[in-house]
Amino acid sequence: MLKLPRTVVCLALAFGASAPVAAQTPDPLVDPYRDISTRIIEAALADSAAWNRLAALTDGFGNRLSGSEALERAIDWIVEEMRHDGLDNPHTEPVKVPHWVRGQESAELVSPRKVALPMLGLGGSIATPKQGITAEVLIVDSFDDLKARVAEAKGKIVLFDVPFTDYGATVAYRSRGAVEAARVGAVASLIRSVTPNSIRSPHTGAMNYDSTVSRIPAAALTVEDAMMLHRMQQRGERVVMKLVMQAQTLPDADSRNVMAEVTGREHPEEVVVLGGHIDSWDVGTGAMDDAGGVVAAWEAVRLIKQLGLTPRRTIRAVGWTNEENGLRGGRAYRESRTPEQVAGHILAIESDGGVFRPIGFGAGASDSAVAILQRVITLLQPIGADSLSRPGGGADIGPLMERGVPGLGLNTVGDRYFWYHHSQGDMADKLDPVDVARCVAAMAVMAYVVAELPEPLPKGVPQARE
Amino acid sequence: MLKLPRTVVCLALAFGASAPVAAQTPDPLVDPYRDISTRIIEAALADSAAWNRLAALTDGFGNRLSGSEALERAIDWIVEEMRHDGLDNPHTEPVKVPHWVRGQESAELVSPRKVALPMLGLGGSIATPKQGITAEVLIVDSFDDLKARVAEAKGKIVLFDVPFTDYGATVAYRSRGAVEAARVGAVASLIRSVTPNSIRSPHTGAMNYDSTVSRIPAAALTVEDAMMLHRMQQRGERVVMKLVMQAQTLPDADSRNVMAEVTGREHPEEVVVLGGHIDSWDVGTGAMDDAGGVVAAWEAVRLIKQLGLTPRRTIRAVGWTNEENGLRGGRAYRESRTPEQVAGHILAIESDGGVFRPIGFGAGASDSAVAILQRVITLLQPIGADSLSRPGGGADIGPLMERGVPGLGLNTVGDRYFWYHHSQGDMADKLDPVDVARCVAAMAVMAYVVAELPEPLPKGVPQARE
Repeated sequence: MLKLPRTVVCLALAFGASAPVAAQTPDPLVDPYRDISTRIIEAALADSAAWNRLAALTDGFGNRLSGSEALERAIDWIVEEMRHDGLDNPHTEPVKVPHWVRGQESAELVSPRKVALPMLGLGGSIATPKQGITAEVLIVDSFDDLKARVAEAKGKIVLFDVPFTDYGATVAYRSRGAVEAARVGAVASLIRSVTPNSIRSPHTGAMNYDSTVSRIPAAALTVEDAMMLHRMQQRGERVVMKLVMQAQTLPDADSRNVMAEVTGREHPEEVVVLGGHIDSWDVGTGAMDDAGGVVAAWEAVRLIKQLGLTPRRTIRAVGWTNEENGLRGGRAYRESRTPEQVAGHILAIESDGGVFRPIGFGAGASDSAVAILQRVITLLQPIGADSLSRPGGGADIGPLMERGVPGLGLNTVGDRYFWYHHSQGDMADKLDPVDVARCVAAMAVMAYVVAELPEPLPKGVPQARE
Repeated sequence: MLKLPRTVVCLALAFGASAPVAAQTPDPLVDPYRDISTRIIEAALADSAAWNRLAALTDGFGNRLSGSEALERAIDWIVEEMRHDGLDNPHTEPVKVPHWVRGQESAELVSPRKVALPMLGLGGSIATPKQGITAEVLIVDSFDDLKARVAEAKGKIVLFDVPFTDYGATVAYRSRGAVEAARVGAVASLIRSVTPNSIRSPHTGAMNYDSTVSRIPAAALTVEDAMMLHRMQQRGERVVMKLVMQAQTLPDADSRNVMAEVTGREHPEEVVVLGGHIDSWDVGTGAMDDAGGVVAAWEAVRLIKQLGLTPRRTIRAVGWTNEENGLRGGRAYRESRTPEQVAGHILAIESDGGVFRPIGFGAGASDSAVAILQRVITLLQPIGADSLSRPGGGADIGPLMERGVPGLGLNTVGDRYFWYHHSQGDMADKLDPVDVARCVAAMAVMAYVVAELPEPLPKGVPQARE
């Protein structure tokens, strides 16, 4: 999942056409790191090791929903591989996670003609009764439209046929659709999948209930079918569907955050933490979202180790668990540490936008920290990843950022991210080995230099967007 | 299905940036038709009638494989609507068609991990034994690669993981894969779906057997899974799959070509025929392939009628049946006519490349006919559809072209055509109402002017590509 608004960035930007002036001007803070940054970038781009690891992880274990055996087996494999890599302190830390299981599910158009409709239940949804729900469908194009047709909604399945604009705006229907539909007496809530492109492919994701209204089943249809049902309604046809879902929420399950590090030579208690989330939805293999983020961070730390670098402070790669449907991993990472340990985190970096071609980072940090990061990021000019924007951060590092830890989110050219997001299509082939290597380089240079700076990055409450 | 090689045409071409000189030069042959062409174009672009009809047809009847009830109900509806349109001589003509049914089918990866793989059996395939086929998979990237690994193929499922280059080159593996795999002792043949883009969406299509080797089941996996299985093999993992298919070929079924016309005022026995195929594969709703072609031709004739035009010769819109897996409709159209009636066809136009933005026509005709068509097509400059290329034609009009009837195939900006081709994604939303209206205009102007020219278009054996 991706929580922050994403900016689809024109490809042209990725090539760093207009280099910041700082790159040409001597800078006593970052100039000492130019040679080592070049070595890190060259090492990252020397082979396809990161992509190969990403493919091995995602092909080998498949998708990794919280509570699944696949997630725990993947975590076992990662910690063992981290040990083989010779990283310091490879280990896991326990996290209790929600355990939602999809079970059998189906949607069928009953009228005006009978046909199976591809669908995916939304994560957290309740089941339908065993025999399913057969009801007329009311198709609306917004919450306002639903309000306008409130008299028609009772006893119906409400379908929100909302075209994709940007993720933040469109995903509101996935999050809140079931609550708003239940409020007007609907018996189930359907959305048009949150994606700008479809080959009749449903996209899942988290949804919320609310204690003020009854819980009704919630699922995603494809873009194609949402539009088709809408056209049928517009033609005056009575649209009837049968929805069957056996989803269950089981007792919380045991999972783990997984991590390893390069221990700092002067201030081992001061930490630059970087990572992604190792859990995924239960479709595809969660390669973009977010095995790529975990692997990029992990490979960044492995490269630093391999190059024989021992920075002033500790650099820790983490695979957080349960980002998608609970955020328990990110919270447990903070809660299992003392306030002093949390305060020892001088920077937190997350990659959860797909390891496509990197263009830079988004920052959630104080002005003084951003001023330094702005100078450090010039070191990424050779790979066109030298754009620092605000705001930034990530869901898993959010709990650290709440305590004033500066946060960075890796920004990439993600124009196809939502084509595959939370769908069967999120598999390793969507990511390019050179782009993945560039992401590793960007994470590694940023982490290494900040861990090596003479003074720690200034703390402070993250700044709002300017 | 699309038989001829398709050229993916740069969008820029569609805007007619460089108009042929002929458009600016007086031309006594076509200048008398400029005003009427403008009227036809304006009428076509005045509303979304064509797209609405395409959506009503495809939403209302769904996909239309030969032998299906949906195909025959769609044909009934079309002929009735043609009657309501006030067209001349709306009727159907009987055609016996192959009757292949998919039945239940599934593919499962058994090793190195268990997971269901989305798949589609290929049209014409035999079934597996009832318990399915469980076997090791040999993944190859070409027929040559299969030859090189012939010693490993016996008793295995062969998977051709061939990246999409162009349709003609890649579809060879769909057509001939089962024969080549059986020849080396394989027990089933799988292909990577023939598409340049995938959201783990399988694409079906026709396949062939050959009397020299035994018949083995044939199916398509997704691009993602073909690549994943290939990577597993490259890592030295043993790949084992279970394939279950209940496909059957039933006795030939009854279908029909459907047609109506505007009868010629001087030479009703001379005919410009235009159309597409009304059958489709049994996925999606066959909107691009090829309800759009049928509707564009039909709407072209309806517009001519609506404008009160009665051309010198007859203009006939046809929905041919069974293009996808038999070509029986196109053959029956010719075979049910006397040689004189066939010879009375002065031009045949087909649209089977998706009714995207039209750029012109491809011609399969004599040099002298092409010289005239080159002048006529300048009338389509206002909508950027004035490019005449060679060769051209279409599968359904092939039998007429074999008898020397000049043939034209509508060319469109089809860069996304193979994203959805023969997949669940081929639905009405992929087509734009304005583009569809432009296709109607292009077909209508071309048909009307050729039907109205003082002299019939010269006959001759279609010319090979220059």
